[in-house]
Amino acid sequence: MKKDGRVSAVSESMPSAARDQTMLRRANELTVLAVLRDGTSRVMREIADETGLSWRTANVVTESLEAHGWLASEADTNGKRLGRPARRYRFRADVGHVAGIDIAAHAISVFIADLAGTIVGRHQVSVSPGDAAADRLATAEATLRAALSTARLDGTGVWAAAVGSTGIIGPDGVVSKSAVLPGWTGVDPGARLAHLLRCPVSVTNDCNLAVLAERWHGHRADTMIYLLTGVRLGTGLVIGGQLHRGSAGAAGEIGEIREFGWHDAAERLAAAAPGPVSDLDRAAAQVFAAARDGDAGCLRAVEQFSTDVARGLTAMVLTIDPDLVVIGGGFAHAADLLLPRLRQRLAGTCPHTPRLEASELGDESVGLGAVRLALDTIDQRITALDSATPLTPAAISGTS
Amino acid sequence: MKKDGRVSAVSESMPSAARDQTMLRRANELTVLAVLRDGTSRVMREIADETGLSWRTANVVTESLEAHGWLASEADTNGKRLGRPARRYRFRADVGHVAGIDIAAHAISVFIADLAGTIVGRHQVSVSPGDAAADRLATAEATLRAALSTARLDGTGVWAAAVGSTGIIGPDGVVSKSAVLPGWTGVDPGARLAHLLRCPVSVTNDCNLAVLAERWHGHRADTMIYLLTGVRLGTGLVIGGQLHRGSAGAAGEIGEIREFGWHDAAERLAAAAPGPVSDLDRAAAQVFAAARDGDAGCLRAVEQFSTDVARGLTAMVLTIDPDLVVIGGGFAHAADLLLPRLRQRLAGTCPHTPRLEASELGDESVGLGAVRLALDTIDQRITALDSATPLTPAAISGTS
Repeated sequence: MKKDGRVSAVSESMPSAARDQTMLRRANELTVLAVLRDGTSRVMREIADETGLSWRTANVVTESLEAHGWLASEADTNGKRLGRPARRYRFRADVGHVAGIDIAAHAISVFIADLAGTIVGRHQVSVSPGDAAADRLATAEATLRAALSTARLDGTGVWAAAVGSTGIIGPDGVVSKSAVLPGWTGVDPGARLAHLLRCPVSVTNDCNLAVLAERWHGHRADTMIYLLTGVRLGTGLVIGGQLHRGSAGAAGEIGEIREFGWHDAAERLAAAAPGPVSDLDRAAAQVFAAARDGDAGCLRAVEQFSTDVARGLTAMVLTIDPDLVVIGGGFAHAADLLLPRLRQRLAGTCPHTPRLEASELGDESVGLGAVRLALDTIDQRITALDSATPLTPAAISGTS
Repeated sequence: MKKDGRVSAVSESMPSAARDQTMLRRANELTVLAVLRDGTSRVMREIADETGLSWRTANVVTESLEAHGWLASEADTNGKRLGRPARRYRFRADVGHVAGIDIAAHAISVFIADLAGTIVGRHQVSVSPGDAAADRLATAEATLRAALSTARLDGTGVWAAAVGSTGIIGPDGVVSKSAVLPGWTGVDPGARLAHLLRCPVSVTNDCNLAVLAERWHGHRADTMIYLLTGVRLGTGLVIGGQLHRGSAGAAGEIGEIREFGWHDAAERLAAAAPGPVSDLDRAAAQVFAAARDGDAGCLRAVEQFSTDVARGLTAMVLTIDPDLVVIGGGFAHAADLLLPRLRQRLAGTCPHTPRLEASELGDESVGLGAVRLALDTIDQRITALDSATPLTPAAISGTS
C-alpha cells in the first residue's frame, strides 16, 4: 500500500478483477448518460466536470456510448481554440420511443414520446361510457395506430408502453374491479396492445398515472395525494418519491367507505343545477357558476360536496401525512370554490394540514403519467442490465 | 481497447482517477462488512465467494477493515491444509453500542445493544401516568444510567440512541402534541439524554418504533400497519420497506376522526366489566375473559370495540393497501377474539384484505424498535461517509 494507505489497494488488485472493472465501467456509463439526458450538448471538459470523472475516463466512456448509438457528436463551433476543434456530444433522444395510453370513459388518448420525454405524436378519439369492452379495446388499438402514424413510427420503435384505466388493476395488469365501464372487469388491455408494439405494456389505475404526471410536469412533493374530482372521485399516491399502488393495486380506494358519500357526491352536487341538464359535468359547471354568483342553494351544494370530499381526504391525510394534495380532474376548474373549503375542513381535524394546489395539466394528465411510467421502465432496464452485457440500445429496447 | 471492447477502458484510465478508486474501495468495504455482520466468522475464500469480489480484492479490503478495528481474526482450526493455516475473520460487534429508550405512561425501559443488535444491558423503572414531565425525564436519565451500568459501559461507548414517546413528534424531535402525558407537549426528551451519551439521540412516536421492532423480530412485510391496542389506540406504518413518519411526523393519526370512536373505545369496552374495577387494563381483561365464557353483554362490548377499531383501520387499509396488519399492545392477548372480528369487518369493505397477525413481542416492542432505529442510523452513517474519509470506528461513532 502507498503511504496514504487507501488509494492503491484496488488498482493493485484490478488485473485479476475483471468483474469489478465492468461494474465500475457501467456505473461510469450511467453517470455520463444521466448528465447528457437533459438534452443539452456538452464538450468533453464539461462532461468530465459534471460527472466528476477524470477527463480520460469520461472520454473513453463517452466515445463508447457514441459508438453504441446513444450519443451524437459534432465539431464545437463555439470554441476558438488552436489545433483540432473540440467535439460537442448530445443524447440521441430519438433512438427509442415510448407510448402513453389513456383509456377513459369519454375518450381514448395516446401520446408518443422520445427518450427525453418530448411528445412527438398524439391522437385522441371520443368514446361513450356505455361502449362494450371489446369496442373500447378496438378503438384503443386504432388510436394507438393513428398516434404512431403521426410520429412516423411503426410499433417496433416503441420500447415501453403504459396504459391508464379506471378501476383496480392487479399486479398482473388485469382489471380486477371496475364500477364505471361495462364489461371492463377481467379485461387485460395491455395484452391486447402488446402485439402492436412488440414491447411490454403495463396497465395502471388512471389516478396513479395522474399523480406521476403531476410530479413530473406540475406540483410536486416527495409524499403527495392526487385527488381526481369530477363525476367520479379517485386518488393516486406518491410516497417517499415512489408511486404507491398497494399490495393488490388497491391503494387510495377510500371511496369504498360508503358513508363518505363519494359514490354519489357529484350527482348530489349536480342536482342543485338551476336548469334541466342531462350531463353531470355540465350540470356541475352550472352549480359552480351559480355558487360564484351567490346562489344560496348552489352554495349549499358546494359546501356539501366539499364535506363529502373532505371526509375521505381527511382519512387519507391522517394516514400518510403528505406534504401536498393536488386537486385534478373535471372539477379542478372550480378550485377557487373547493380549495379553501377543503383546506378549512382538513385543518379542523388534522394535526398537520398539507399544502393544497389545483392541477394545471387538464385532461392530459393520465396520458402524460403513462408516458412518465414508460420512461421509468426504460430507466429501470438500463440500471438493471447486467454489467457484463454491453449497454446498447438493442439491449434496452425491450422489443421481442 | 482490447478485443472484447469493454473491460480494458477503465483500468487504462485508473492511474489518473483516484476518486473513482476510492469510491470502488468504499463499495468493496461495505460489501465485506455487510457479509460479516451476520456474526458468522469466515475464511478469505468464503468472503470472496459471498461478496463476489476477487480473492485479492477481498483480501486487501478485509485486512484493512481488521486494521481499523471492525474485524477480528484467528487461525482457522477447522481446516486441514498444508502450509500456513487460513485465518477466520469475524465482525467485532462490540466495537460500538446503541441505546433504545421507551418513555411510556407506566414504565421507562432502556435496552443497550451491540452493533449486531444483541441486547447486552437493560433496565426498567415503573412510573405513573400522572407524573410531571420533569420527573419523567429525570427517571429516564436514571434508567439510562442503570442500563449502561448493566452493560458495563459509560455513555461514550454509545454511538446512536433513539427514544420512543407517545404523541406526535416533529422532525426536530420535539413532542408537538401529546394527549396522554401531563406537560409532555413541547418537551425535547432527546436533548435531555444526549449529554449523558455524547451522541445524537432521535425521538420518534412509540407506534413508529413498534412497527420497526415487528419488522425486525416479528411479523414482517414491505408495507404493513402496526396497530397498538389497549387503553390507547395508535398506529405505525412501514411503506415500501421504510418507516413512514409523514411530513410532520403525523402519519397514522387516524384516531383524530372522532366519529371512529378511538378516543374512548377502551373505556366503553371496560364499562362492560362484570365487577367494579379501577384500572382500565384489568377491566378490559375481565371483559375479554367473560366474552370467551359466552357472557352476552361482554360479547356485545367486544363486537362494539372491534367495530370501533375496524372503522379507523379500514380507512388506513383503503388508503395504503398494505400486505400485513399486526395487532400489538395490551389487548394483543385478546387476538383470538379481535382478529377474526377485524378480518370480517375489513373484508366487508376493502377490495383487498391484508393478512392480520397478533404481535408476540409484548411490551418490549417500543424499546426494541428504538434499538433497531439507532442501528439503522449507524448504517446510514457508514453508507454516507465520504469515500475519501477512512472507514474507521471513530468516523462512524457519532460521539462528540
